[in-house]
Amino acid sequence: MLKVEHIGIAVRELSKSVPLFEKLLNTPCYKTEQVESEQVSTAFFKTGDTKIELLESSSAEGVIARFIDKKGEGIHHIAFEVTDIEAEMKRLVNEGFVLLNEQPKRGADNKLVCFLHPKNTNGVLVELCMEIKG
Amino acid sequence: MLKVEHIGIAVRELSKSVPLFEKLLNTPCYKTEQVESEQVSTAFFKTGDTKIELLESSSAEGVIARFIDKKGEGIHHIAFEVTDIEAEMKRLVNEGFVLLNEQPKRGADNKLVCFLHPKNTNGVLVELCMEIKG
Repeated sequence: MLKVEHIGIAVRELSKSVPLFEKLLNTPCYKTEQVESEQVSTAFFKTGDTKIELLESSSAEGVIARFIDKKGEGIHHIAFEVTDIEAEMKRLVNEGFVLLNEQPKRGADNKLVCFLHPKNTNGVLVELCMEIKG
Repeated sequence: MLKVEHIGIAVRELSKSVPLFEKLLNTPCYKTEQVESEQVSTAFFKTGDTKIELLESSSAEGVIARFIDKKGEGIHHIAFEVTDIEAEMKRLVNEGFVLLNEQPKRGADNKLVCFLHPKNTNGVLVELCMEIKG
């Protein structure tokens, strides 16, 4: 785990939350991106070496919509940057953690990602992410 | 907001969660600290430029115990480092945010801290923190 690459925050409406987080963080949103496979629209902010990623569901059935239905808006996951995602997935499985996807999948922001089951991480949804090169 | 200084995670038992996070993050816990005023025991890990702070309540009435009763173990807050905490508190109040403590208070890790009310931050408990010098 190299660093906290980003913190994902579930919000109902990016149109309201982007200006709110611009005021909070005192920095402009520098990118928005749709991730069809995850049924989310995302908006990114930089703070130091870490990003804040706001996530709005683009479907009533999406994981973010279901998260908000259950828990309300708030912090959704922590993403750690890794140098070799497959090696890190193997290391974590050997340590007893459970992967939510057996193969790395394409996430937002040009990344390969893998999530860990929060039942083994004290309720924290942990994402591994690795930049796609080339 | 200079950077994400740390992410606070509420756990029931540090004795179980410290070895768990050592495996997860692949790095040793480098410090533990009691914060009597907040009724918590804390344990710290480094990942890049950000810390992970595990929080166990030292009292059944403490904020962390109440958080876990309500929501279960999981991510509790995001702390942003600031250069001038009083100036940042003023800026945020002027932007419409609500402070949970009107004056900076002593937190863990030799910091002055202030929390923002999560009702104005999309459910995210935000901490401002500034190192105490000298």
